[in-house]
Amino acid sequence: MGSEEVRVKNIGLRGVTVADTKVSYIDGINGILIYRGYRIEDLAENSNFMEACYLLLREVLPTRGQLEAFSSEVAAWRQVPDFVYESMKRWPKESRPMDVLQASVPLLAMADPELESAEREAEARKAMRLVARLPTVVAAWHRIRNGLEPLLPDEGLSHAANFLWLLQGEKPQEAVARDLDVCLILHADHTFNASTFACREVVSTKAHMYAGVAAGVGALSGELHGGANERVMRMLLELEGVEDVAGWVKGKLDRHEKIMGVGHAVYKTMDPRARILKKMSYELGRRTGQAKWPERSSIIEETSLAEFEKRGKPEIRTNVDFYSASVYYMMGIPIDLMTCIFALSRIGGWCAHIIEEKFGEAQGKPALYRPKAEWVGDYCGRSECSYDPIENR
Amino acid sequence: MGSEEVRVKNIGLRGVTVADTKVSYIDGINGILIYRGYRIEDLAENSNFMEACYLLLREVLPTRGQLEAFSSEVAAWRQVPDFVYESMKRWPKESRPMDVLQASVPLLAMADPELESAEREAEARKAMRLVARLPTVVAAWHRIRNGLEPLLPDEGLSHAANFLWLLQGEKPQEAVARDLDVCLILHADHTFNASTFACREVVSTKAHMYAGVAAGVGALSGELHGGANERVMRMLLELEGVEDVAGWVKGKLDRHEKIMGVGHAVYKTMDPRARILKKMSYELGRRTGQAKWPERSSIIEETSLAEFEKRGKPEIRTNVDFYSASVYYMMGIPIDLMTCIFALSRIGGWCAHIIEEKFGEAQGKPALYRPKAEWVGDYCGRSECSYDPIENR
Repeated sequence: MGSEEVRVKNIGLRGVTVADTKVSYIDGINGILIYRGYRIEDLAENSNFMEACYLLLREVLPTRGQLEAFSSEVAAWRQVPDFVYESMKRWPKESRPMDVLQASVPLLAMADPELESAEREAEARKAMRLVARLPTVVAAWHRIRNGLEPLLPDEGLSHAANFLWLLQGEKPQEAVARDLDVCLILHADHTFNASTFACREVVSTKAHMYAGVAAGVGALSGELHGGANERVMRMLLELEGVEDVAGWVKGKLDRHEKIMGVGHAVYKTMDPRARILKKMSYELGRRTGQAKWPERSSIIEETSLAEFEKRGKPEIRTNVDFYSASVYYMMGIPIDLMTCIFALSRIGGWCAHIIEEKFGEAQGKPALYRPKAEWVGDYCGRSECSYDPIENR
Repeated sequence: MGSEEVRVKNIGLRGVTVADTKVSYIDGINGILIYRGYRIEDLAENSNFMEACYLLLREVLPTRGQLEAFSSEVAAWRQVPDFVYESMKRWPKESRPMDVLQASVPLLAMADPELESAEREAEARKAMRLVARLPTVVAAWHRIRNGLEPLLPDEGLSHAANFLWLLQGEKPQEAVARDLDVCLILHADHTFNASTFACREVVSTKAHMYAGVAAGVGALSGELHGGANERVMRMLLELEGVEDVAGWVKGKLDRHEKIMGVGHAVYKTMDPRARILKKMSYELGRRTGQAKWPERSSIIEETSLAEFEKRGKPEIRTNVDFYSASVYYMMGIPIDLMTCIFALSRIGGWCAHIIEEKFGEAQGKPALYRPKAEWVGDYCGRSECSYDPIENR
């Protein structure tokens, strides 16, 4: 690079390579997503969320002994200190759950016994604690806002089952817990998306991991990012009682309105996660007698894709949010917690990227991200606004 | 850009232009910093922090009536709801103040009556509330961690004087309050630094202003960014009792160690803010009988610059943190709050940039920032890691 300038304005850095990574890789043309070299389909089929986190954080698949030790350690760290609950009890009950989650991350920093250490192993343990504790925080908030006491984590339950227990106060069916576990695997990483980049950007200043994760939560809350799944579900509900769903979709597209969950910045074919979630949505619908949600989703999908094909955009497909919305809904997860569920999964990837940002061996690291902007205001060295005293204005 | 790829790896986006801006401009060669067209020297000399915030947020200098209305409105919003204090009282007293500040920002979101509105005027009012309330939060934390009750903001005091009152429980001397006010002007914006870019990056997803500001606080906490002023002061204190300060500096440089507050990513000549702060540090030292701090700073500065000149790096100069450290210290601000003071000032710029990111008319906006990374792991389409069942590992 040297002193040469690169002009890439106003396009959100699309196509600009900012770092090397070994965390994950997307082949958007062929619809392939891998974590640390492993295909997302293999992980969804054979793995579990604890293993996926181990893989993301430790770079390799664990042996059975390593996985058991890691899972036990995470389970043992699920509890959060009382001061977190005691604070939450004072927050307005109508607060947005993602604001609650963002506020909680620095509280978890205060509760981390190794906050002062910047050693690589200490960072890996901070990541493990974040993976363990975010579900507790989200579930506790849901209880507290409904006037209920938070429940105690159950070390005997899997990561996903424990979260549903904390949230709903009932041990979930095994199949439901497994479905949620697969959802957590699927959302755990996705290269340099906006929230992950925010995490990396923040820790590039040598800020600690929690400071970066709080930024990630903030970015994920945006409707162009993690906020999309909530909007998909609201759309599905809005269609309750609409006979001609296909006509409704066509009308929207004719008016150049967006169909939530359709289209993605990276994939030009079906998102491999969406394929798995679609199947899950149908199975869950059948098992729980709520087949109308996947069916309604399918009509929207088929109509949108056919319309986009007609309009010369055959590459537009449904994304990960499109079927995750109905899956979460059928599991009984409140709509306004759906983006939080995304965070409970993505925390694995965020932390893996933060560790890579802090310890990556790539040339020139650490270098804090400090891009340029083009001044288009009135000064710019040509003519200067002179400061008029207030009397003369 | 189109489909062309730009390879700019591992250099923290230096030299990559990511957006148009009308907020501020730096001419690093000539040591010029302007806000909305106005030179920082003019603002430091003639303006005050309320006017600088108005300028940053509203793009023009206010009339007297506009400035009075804005200042009164900010003063009226200084109070924070009780639930913020009640939460803080439960947090560990040894928590890092920047973690406290980061946790408080989403709490202030919960307390914003217009959080649900994304209208431009509502965003400007959110910015005004953040400017008003961050000082209250920082001062309240300092009282609470020392077992004291937070004090009530005094609408009759200027922004800077009110902060010192809330922090110290005494009305400050007018000259001290004016010095702090000038410090707040000087730190209020600095183009696309890491924290400002983090704010913009987060809200590019359509996340709300508070979510972005919390990310900015996180980035500012890093020692390569806002955390530097605390480290400068610790260096000055470490030198207590050292006779040969120049020798100490040379020794450091011979061992290739960093001298805190020396060097900047952008300026290749004296940082215009440092020049103003150096003068302020000397005057404050004289007035308060603490001349040793600016004097010690000067020896470090002169020795470092002479050594860097000898080593063929004459462009290396002291930065804004170098003299702000001693200024804050002489005002009686605790060292571990110095980065928070930076945030109380930079909030003006963060909010101006967030508004520009959300409403900027530049082509292609809003486009969420989503850069690329180069996969350097084991898969990459060439050979795939096959998922071995756990029994076989």
